[in-house]
Amino acid sequence: MTAAEASVIPESHQDIPIAKTLAHIATIGPRGEPQNSPVWIDWDGTHLSFSQTKTRQKLHNLQRNPKIALSMTDPENPYRYLEVRGTVESVEDDADNAFINKMAKKYLGQDVYPYHRPEDERVVVKVRPVRATQMG
Amino acid sequence: MTAAEASVIPESHQDIPIAKTLAHIATIGPRGEPQNSPVWIDWDGTHLSFSQTKTRQKLHNLQRNPKIALSMTDPENPYRYLEVRGTVESVEDDADNAFINKMAKKYLGQDVYPYHRPEDERVVVKVRPVRATQMG
Repeated sequence: MTAAEASVIPESHQDIPIAKTLAHIATIGPRGEPQNSPVWIDWDGTHLSFSQTKTRQKLHNLQRNPKIALSMTDPENPYRYLEVRGTVESVEDDADNAFINKMAKKYLGQDVYPYHRPEDERVVVKVRPVRATQMG
Repeated sequence: MTAAEASVIPESHQDIPIAKTLAHIATIGPRGEPQNSPVWIDWDGTHLSFSQTKTRQKLHNLQRNPKIALSMTDPENPYRYLEVRGTVESVEDDADNAFINKMAKKYLGQDVYPYHRPEDERVVVKVRPVRATQMG
């Protein structure tokens, strides 16, 4: 996707993933069941991205089935919401924890993610939006 | 389940669905894809319940596949969260809008749900929790 193409996320609601919202991430579990949990979210105008440790169930789910749905509300107004359905386009190592530190800066105002454990190996999951639904 | 049985939701986190949190509801769509959107939620100690209009996709999803995952955060502390996986146990008509009005009282402080449209037929979806995961 080039910068000239419009996102499936309408401009009117792109402020939501830019704000300090938690994105609730629905994935499909090993027995075909839905799973759902909150993550910090990054929006760069093309992809929605979030951090995961390599051992998390959510990551295994997405490696089995890359379909995902993210539900987010405006932190200032819970009746403005955005659902984005999409596909995981890449899962890359978070070299030097650059991405999780960027998220710590956004959400905690700290330069370095304070909950890092030496044994944690982190990846960046990038989602390509396919469809958006919004309200408010 | 009798009142004497413990819920799969630990007592330590039962305050979350009692608070004015939005529950993000993950369901499985017609092509096996996850879908996710926020709802008002009720917790009576046994079931998590929410309102739907009969025309909503989410309701059709749950009639096809009753598996559901609800992700909720503490409105006062977003780092306390609760995920509940469960099964839809019943879908019943919301006679006289009693349930949606109860939710309007909880979330808006109003006796009558102000967004009701005469053509809306509402149901109450009751979810039996099967498994819970929590943090914080």
